[in-house]
Amino acid sequence: MSSWQDSYKLLADQLTDRGVNVEQVKALLKAQRIETPSWGYGDSGTRFKVFAQAGAARTPFEKIADAAQVHRFTGVCPSVALHIPWDLVDDWGELQGYAESLGMTLGAINPNLFQDDAYKLGSLANPDHGVRLKAIAHVLECIAIAETVGSDIISLWLADGTNYPGTDNIRSRKAHLEQSLREIYQSLPARQRLLIEYKFYEPAFYLTDIPDWGTAYALSLKLGQRAQVLVDLGHHPQGTNVEQIVGFLLAENKLGGFHFNNRKYGDDDLTTGSINPYELFLIYNELVDATRDPSLRQDVAYMIDQSHNVKPKIEAMIQSVMQIQEAYAKALLVSRDELTGYQVEGAIVEGEECLRSAYQTDVRPLLAQVRAEMGLDPNPLAAFRAGGYQKEIAAGRGRSDGGSGYQGA
Amino acid sequence: MSSWQDSYKLLADQLTDRGVNVEQVKALLKAQRIETPSWGYGDSGTRFKVFAQAGAARTPFEKIADAAQVHRFTGVCPSVALHIPWDLVDDWGELQGYAESLGMTLGAINPNLFQDDAYKLGSLANPDHGVRLKAIAHVLECIAIAETVGSDIISLWLADGTNYPGTDNIRSRKAHLEQSLREIYQSLPARQRLLIEYKFYEPAFYLTDIPDWGTAYALSLKLGQRAQVLVDLGHHPQGTNVEQIVGFLLAENKLGGFHFNNRKYGDDDLTTGSINPYELFLIYNELVDATRDPSLRQDVAYMIDQSHNVKPKIEAMIQSVMQIQEAYAKALLVSRDELTGYQVEGAIVEGEECLRSAYQTDVRPLLAQVRAEMGLDPNPLAAFRAGGYQKEIAAGRGRSDGGSGYQGA
Amino acid sequence: MSSWQDSYKLLADQLTDRGVNVEQVKALLKAQRIETPSWGYGDSGTRFKVFAQAGAARTPFEKIADAAQVHRFTGVCPSVALHIPWDLVDDWGELQGYAESLGMTLGAINPNLFQDDAYKLGSLANPDHGVRLKAIAHVLECIAIAETVGSDIISLWLADGTNYPGTDNIRSRKAHLEQSLREIYQSLPARQRLLIEYKFYEPAFYLTDIPDWGTAYALSLKLGQRAQVLVDLGHHPQGTNVEQIVGFLLAENKLGGFHFNNRKYGDDDLTTGSINPYELFLIYNELVDATRDPSLRQDVAYMIDQSHNVKPKIEAMIQSVMQIQEAYAKALLVSRDELTGYQVEGAIVEGEECLRSAYQTDVRPLLAQVRAEMGLDPNPLAAFRAGGYQKEIAAGRGRSDGGSGYQGA
Amino acid sequence: MSSWQDSYKLLADQLTDRGVNVEQVKALLKAQRIETPSWGYGDSGTRFKVFAQAGAARTPFEKIADAAQVHRFTGVCPSVALHIPWDLVDDWGELQGYAESLGMTLGAINPNLFQDDAYKLGSLANPDHGVRLKAIAHVLECIAIAETVGSDIISLWLADGTNYPGTDNIRSRKAHLEQSLREIYQSLPARQRLLIEYKFYEPAFYLTDIPDWGTAYALSLKLGQRAQVLVDLGHHPQGTNVEQIVGFLLAENKLGGFHFNNRKYGDDDLTTGSINPYELFLIYNELVDATRDPSLRQDVAYMIDQSHNVKPKIEAMIQSVMQIQEAYAKALLVSRDELTGYQVEGAIVEGEECLRSAYQTDVRPLLAQVRAEMGLDPNPLAAFRAGGYQKEIAAGRGRSDGGSGYQGA
Repeated sequence: MSSWQDSYKLLADQLTDRGVNVEQVKALLKAQRIETPSWGYGDSGTRFKVFAQAGAARTPFEKIADAAQVHRFTGVCPSVALHIPWDLVDDWGELQGYAESLGMTLGAINPNLFQDDAYKLGSLANPDHGVRLKAIAHVLECIAIAETVGSDIISLWLADGTNYPGTDNIRSRKAHLEQSLREIYQSLPARQRLLIEYKFYEPAFYLTDIPDWGTAYALSLKLGQRAQVLVDLGHHPQGTNVEQIVGFLLAENKLGGFHFNNRKYGDDDLTTGSINPYELFLIYNELVDATRDPSLRQDVAYMIDQSHNVKPKIEAMIQSVMQIQEAYAKALLVSRDELTGYQVEGAIVEGEECLRSAYQTDVRPLLAQVRAEMGLDPNPLAAFRAGGYQKEIAAGRGRSDGGSGYQGA
Repeated sequence: MSSWQDSYKLLADQLTDRGVNVEQVKALLKAQRIETPSWGYGDSGTRFKVFAQAGAARTPFEKIADAAQVHRFTGVCPSVALHIPWDLVDDWGELQGYAESLGMTLGAINPNLFQDDAYKLGSLANPDHGVRLKAIAHVLECIAIAETVGSDIISLWLADGTNYPGTDNIRSRKAHLEQSLREIYQSLPARQRLLIEYKFYEPAFYLTDIPDWGTAYALSLKLGQRAQVLVDLGHHPQGTNVEQIVGFLLAENKLGGFHFNNRKYGDDDLTTGSINPYELFLIYNELVDATRDPSLRQDVAYMIDQSHNVKPKIEAMIQSVMQIQEAYAKALLVSRDELTGYQVEGAIVEGEECLRSAYQTDVRPLLAQVRAEMGLDPNPLAAFRAGGYQKEIAAGRGRSDGGSGYQGA
Repeated sequence: MSSWQDSYKLLADQLTDRGVNVEQVKALLKAQRIETPSWGYGDSGTRFKVFAQAGAARTPFEKIADAAQVHRFTGVCPSVALHIPWDLVDDWGELQGYAESLGMTLGAINPNLFQDDAYKLGSLANPDHGVRLKAIAHVLECIAIAETVGSDIISLWLADGTNYPGTDNIRSRKAHLEQSLREIYQSLPARQRLLIEYKFYEPAFYLTDIPDWGTAYALSLKLGQRAQVLVDLGHHPQGTNVEQIVGFLLAENKLGGFHFNNRKYGDDDLTTGSINPYELFLIYNELVDATRDPSLRQDVAYMIDQSHNVKPKIEAMIQSVMQIQEAYAKALLVSRDELTGYQVEGAIVEGEECLRSAYQTDVRPLLAQVRAEMGLDPNPLAAFRAGGYQKEIAAGRGRSDGGSGYQGA
Repeated sequence: MSSWQDSYKLLADQLTDRGVNVEQVKALLKAQRIETPSWGYGDSGTRFKVFAQAGAARTPFEKIADAAQVHRFTGVCPSVALHIPWDLVDDWGELQGYAESLGMTLGAINPNLFQDDAYKLGSLANPDHGVRLKAIAHVLECIAIAETVGSDIISLWLADGTNYPGTDNIRSRKAHLEQSLREIYQSLPARQRLLIEYKFYEPAFYLTDIPDWGTAYALSLKLGQRAQVLVDLGHHPQGTNVEQIVGFLLAENKLGGFHFNNRKYGDDDLTTGSINPYELFLIYNELVDATRDPSLRQDVAYMIDQSHNVKPKIEAMIQSVMQIQEAYAKALLVSRDELTGYQVEGAIVEGEECLRSAYQTDVRPLLAQVRAEMGLDPNPLAAFRAGGYQKEIAAGRGRSDGGSGYQGA
């Protein structure tokens, strides 16, 4: 029986023949870091139904324990993003100590500005000054938590918007939002960055206050260098060229980070790479390409944010990390000088085939080798399943009642 | 001060001059019927948050009481659609009696095939035979309820679908769905119709088993004459010409009914006519046009189904009914013979202006007159507000906790 | 027989009762200005077919003559946008003199950077330096023409983009584009403005160099105050809230102008207001609202740019102007203080109904009165038809061969 | 240096280990047939510009010569679709003889019902009876040509539709279209099939008479067994699950054939697989899956129809064929029994990974081996380039003037 080692050996030879520095590629793959979100380990669903899973995490401690499993089998996910107040604890030192005991750190802090009754008409853009102050105070609380736990990223997603024409004044909302953000930015410690997320629509259905990268970019310009844009892959109109947005923001030093996921329709929050893996590759192609320009900042935060409602939570996360690793690995195999040559000549078919050649490569043996060299099982998904953790938590934690945001009986 | 009566008199004169039979138009407007849904009076929200409203209805009785308010002020909404099991009661006679005491009847019965844990992979199209049987049994239960309460419509919306490639076999699901529907149809009493709703996506995000009118139509053909298609205005891909679907189904005697609402993005479930009132007019233009062909069935059921999360429930419903009345009134004013003349000549600008002329007409005085002749206040929204009912229920029923389908703390 | 005068009188009374200053509204409607494009009077079509029209304009002189007809019957369209080289003439004085003899002036100059074989991979963003220089030179030529004919607007639409991944480097293209624009802006005389148009896609089908308002806005920021954004209503992804973009740009003093048209799918280039007139009203609502803030620039250029392929050219233009007048008139009737009150209170239904009330108003009698006071026929479309001009040009100019595609030189 | 033969050997071993019958897979790949269109070898473009290519084919003979090159290097493209009247010749025997001399046959006949001035308001659905008769006559002419040249497929794409509300009556158009199709179908010889293509929009921008698969399917049901649906991959609303449509039509014996291409926005007509190759794989997954059901018809016609405007025509066609071969090869590697097992269990991650495993496989060595066994060069694109044909035709045929728009007669 031939093995992945045979495949790796042959692939490494062929890549070397083509001029690829395989050792360097492996080193970069080992250095890749992807943050997973605490809320990705708990139950989630649609407005119609939450299908509760046996063993879904219920507390910040359980979420970190689950995230540690993802890191244990992939080796590239040592941090966990937190959502406040979902992950609020009395003793941050205890949570941090628990994380460290599992080889984990606490990552981006995500304020929740959409689940308080006060936010019906928005949070930072609310027409009511009192509500805006409340929202600002919550973000400042999150900044303090970040200070406490040693995190340097505030991930700001606003659900702010309106559902009907006439509900509020467009220019007033813009002014309110800018003023609120200025107050927040003034309180931002020097080591923290504020990542401003945009979203085309939902939960606001007529007007969303930060609907596109252009708005997030304009806001980040007004604030300063530590304000950057957060690109969530599912938050675009159909047909959007996301890799172009990534390239634009990289060139402007305004790409703060990613929320990885995939979608077919709206913000479906499906697992990363599940619908259009070629697009994910093209995004990584921009990221790798930008590393060639030493004048650019290289501080992009790579985070998963998806709502894998019907997949087993930890497995779905491992699967997503593997998709991201594959996209990065393929992007690292692109012959950049050759590609540039085709582009200068205007050789359209050749340029595309140059990209396609990297994309067509089966990088699984390469990643298996990387994992083996990192002391990991070459197949993280199989290894996790074999480990018995899922059964353990299913038995130990049980299953919640589910429920739904929609009309309940 | 000039009054709406002055406006009506002038409008009636001008319409009469143009050859419109104003009395007939008013008679048709008085005969219009729009069913409101029980679930439109309870709290609703997005996956992120339910903003609970003071006084939101909690029981079938409260929902009927609220619907009766809409009928009281509009005069055209005497029936209420029910959702099972949300509206399940022990004694249907009691509920029916209560409705009748308020001048109301019970309308379409809507089975719920999406909130049971068994339905994670679908209901009527589930790969598991046992789950399909369970789902069929529920629809048969709904048919029995319809018999009991004297309703003749089963409104079938399926959330069935999958989120990822590979989850199930596309042709198997189709076969399963068809077999399930055949079993249901065989049990359908002769006086009942089965309306099959389609939806482009959500809550399924990769494959929806009945994603478009074509699928619903094909299924209805396989079943028989009492199976028809239900058109929910928000369930189409962007750019869809909905009035064309309406015209097609009318010509085939396969338009069973509507779920009225509006959307800007996905299935936003905004109130009817709030985003594109011209489209609503063009849909009514097809409906009015089809009444000229005596060979066509005229049994379209007009129902509202929207998720006016942030608007006061009863006001939003009255507002929606008024939008529908306006669209219908304008469609009744189209000079059909003149329009046909332009169409035969290929006079594109003239044909469009003929439609536009009806649409541009301010029909509010006409509807005020219709209401006055029906013994109603000419302004239903103002009259409802003046009536004090909203304050009464807000005080009497209180406000629920809200909550959300999403990650809860 | 009741007349439009009766309707106007009643409307004026009712508006006055509501506190509207009818004389001021009429004054604003008389002062409205809408520029029509020379190329809107020639044959146009899709990639599949041009249906040639008898009498379609073939020369700049004929185009201006046709535009003068639109002005003659509407009174608000005294200028014509030119496209270079389509409208290139040897003697600009002669063309300008001809225009003046018809009461017309020459308006925005539109460089053509998409019909030269050199532009296969782009113009200002082309990877080849020589091609970029050629494109820059063409824009400078257009700037010189603008100087000559007394125009103060350069309308820049780029077809630049690529069709396939790999064709060119995203960040290089961005750098090239910025450099080209900087060179152009440096040559822009003080009295001219550079309006940068964006377009989501087409004719580039993978990557468009200026795909959205965010890119155009970012470019305009880099250039300076006389660089602004041009909003073409058909150039957005489905679902985009265009009035929000308008409000944002107004607040930033970066809204340079409009290209009016409408679409249902892609960049359909249908006549203005034909698909979603409510959206057009909401856009004008932002424009009127912004006039209340004296700190904002009020130099928006209102231009029509549509491809009414199958409608008679001049009639289609008059019809479009009338749609725009109606949207503006309705926006002027919005009770702004009342609306603000509802917005501050968070009265969602009331706020929407406040807008709807203005939109529902039949403003045709008001516009008829405005026209009568301007010495025009109250019905421009009927008056133009009665004038016999169309027959005259059909006979005098004949019909071209058609062919397929867009307006060619 | 390791070679593709080494890769093939290792892959074949691994596949065999997994239970794949590699010889059978190769046999199926050798038997694959893809038809290329004559018009894919001539100049094409957008409404804005045609970038003429040196050597682009100008006559049916040149087009067949070019198509023969694609077949020569791929071995799977022995037939050419014709477009009438673009490919009209006086002597069909001569054209057929020429094709046969190059090892080619004439394939599907495509009537042109969109480039005559009469068709401004449609062809088979035109409100004018005379125009409908003219259109029917043209299709009958195409049927006769098909008889003459031994083709058994009529590929019917209609540009029929309207641009504005009011232009024509929706139900009348439907009735006219059905009547026209019935007359055509009655004249269809027993050996011919009528494939009805649908398209969401363009060139009609408000209403398209056959906008979706549902309409094409309904029409094919009314006609009979030899009427089937033609799926053009670019003719769907954004977000459409095309593989589901394919599965539905296969299950109904109504999938007549494909027009392969790809798109990111509208009907971009990009080369097959260039934007979302995973979707192409999922479509082939349905096709392969359906071969397991012996009760289903297996007469799908695989045709390319794309508008590779800026790519060299013949290279683009070879590249597209290779993409299709890769998608098919990967679909053949799916472990169907294993997949079914996961689906029955509801194992979502496992089912997806089963598909992904086949998709991730680098099938280029397998296809190289297939080609070698067919006596072809393992790399068709490189071999074609090395052959010198392109230079030859560039020199011999020259370059046209370009212009704007689509392939004209």
